[in-house]
Amino acid sequence: MATITPIQDPDDPRIDDYRDLTNADRRPDRPGGRGLVIAEGVVVVRRLIDSPYPVRSLLGVPRRLAELADDLAGLDVPAYEADADTMATAVGFHLNRGVLAVADRAPAPDPGELAGCARVIAVLEGVNDHENLGALFRNAAALGVDGVLLGPRCADPLYRRSVRVSMGHVLRVPFATLPGDWPGSLDLLRDAGLRVAALTPAADAESISAAGLSGCRVALLLGAEGPGLTPEALAAADRRVRIPMATGVDSLNVATAAAVAFHAVSPAVI
Amino acid sequence: MATITPIQDPDDPRIDDYRDLTNADRRPDRPGGRGLVIAEGVVVVRRLIDSPYPVRSLLGVPRRLAELADDLAGLDVPAYEADADTMATAVGFHLNRGVLAVADRAPAPDPGELAGCARVIAVLEGVNDHENLGALFRNAAALGVDGVLLGPRCADPLYRRSVRVSMGHVLRVPFATLPGDWPGSLDLLRDAGLRVAALTPAADAESISAAGLSGCRVALLLGAEGPGLTPEALAAADRRVRIPMATGVDSLNVATAAAVAFHAVSPAVI
Repeated sequence: MATITPIQDPDDPRIDDYRDLTNADRRPDRPGGRGLVIAEGVVVVRRLIDSPYPVRSLLGVPRRLAELADDLAGLDVPAYEADADTMATAVGFHLNRGVLAVADRAPAPDPGELAGCARVIAVLEGVNDHENLGALFRNAAALGVDGVLLGPRCADPLYRRSVRVSMGHVLRVPFATLPGDWPGSLDLLRDAGLRVAALTPAADAESISAAGLSGCRVALLLGAEGPGLTPEALAAADRRVRIPMATGVDSLNVATAAAVAFHAVSPAVI
Repeated sequence: MATITPIQDPDDPRIDDYRDLTNADRRPDRPGGRGLVIAEGVVVVRRLIDSPYPVRSLLGVPRRLAELADDLAGLDVPAYEADADTMATAVGFHLNRGVLAVADRAPAPDPGELAGCARVIAVLEGVNDHENLGALFRNAAALGVDGVLLGPRCADPLYRRSVRVSMGHVLRVPFATLPGDWPGSLDLLRDAGLRVAALTPAADAESISAAGLSGCRVALLLGAEGPGLTPEALAAADRRVRIPMATGVDSLNVATAAAVAFHAVSPAVI
């Protein structure tokens, strides 16, 4: 049972984990910072509590902590209760969502094991926008993707904004960084029995719906909106697949393209 | 050929169309305001110039107007050139994108004619978030949707933020408001020979990939994220289709769900 402790002083050291979240240098959710995982809002805080990440504490206004009463019942961490102004002063901005929770990072799963038991896995190269990355995890969770592997130049999925845009789903879709040389590390996926299909707008790629991947075990290789996958990554894939697009239109947002691709490789009837 | 006219004074009445864009009461792109269409940035301004909307003028910093030189060559409207500070003072905020254009609205196409020549059309109910609506238009343009019909409680696709998020594609995907009673007005689509398929997360709906709609003439009925379609709209559809989703996950963002659905009804091989 979480202990609810009132906080009156925004400088109270017990809420140091939440201090100055907008100040990049001290922001605890930055690599090189303290590396904490920050959840904002009742829905995402609930997902953090249900996740493998060890929760350190909560900080919220009374109404939001009350909404989380059932979730807090099984949790042995401090819940700090403060009014909105005290929270805003400590955090550095006014929080519409009224509740935050922090957790420590947890060890990442082994990429080979993740790939070994996955039917569909997303492999990302250069997805360096935190919001796109968060949205991609939300779509992965909704569309039954079993895990995400991060190649080079990807943003941190546990950065606060990614967590928020994912609606907390980065906390439940397992992910890991691919070890070793890129794109040679894609061999790990083939060794796990997955076909590696690279998504590209190239006109000579196969239409993803006609590529016969529905229901197959597949690793979908996705690059950033704009530059897309590097030639090296494209060359290292077993297949190149495309989402048929109208002429003269820029590519889809990467998270949206991912959603279309995730759906296209799902079994036709579920 | 557009005439380039330097503007030094932010109060110059020739740039009144651009004044105080953040002030809701006077914002010219609001219904009840002056109803102008505002495009921001080189890419979207270019799409506005290529659209059926009659451009009134442009306002930009020299570098951005220079990028648009070819587009301006065939255009007989004033292009006002100002420095970034003068623009910011007139507009009310600093514009990263450095160029704006305004156009008058154009008459909407006839909904029956739009439906009559469409293979895929999106019909929206209660999509009242400008960013979601803009993203939906971007996805519609990319995935070959021929038009959008607006049912009740939809946001204005020509609102500045929708235009921006759509990357200007609201200016090229034809749209119109469905006339008459809702959802009785869906008969217009059936009269045009389209099947009306409602997208819903309901477990007893057909999986969209298995519904045999690929390549068919179809009107996809989409509701807002969260509440979804009203029971009346669902009941008025010919079919109810769903995107198979993992258990325990909220629905997808409406624009993302729309993208998955647009792709699912596209011909399997293009």
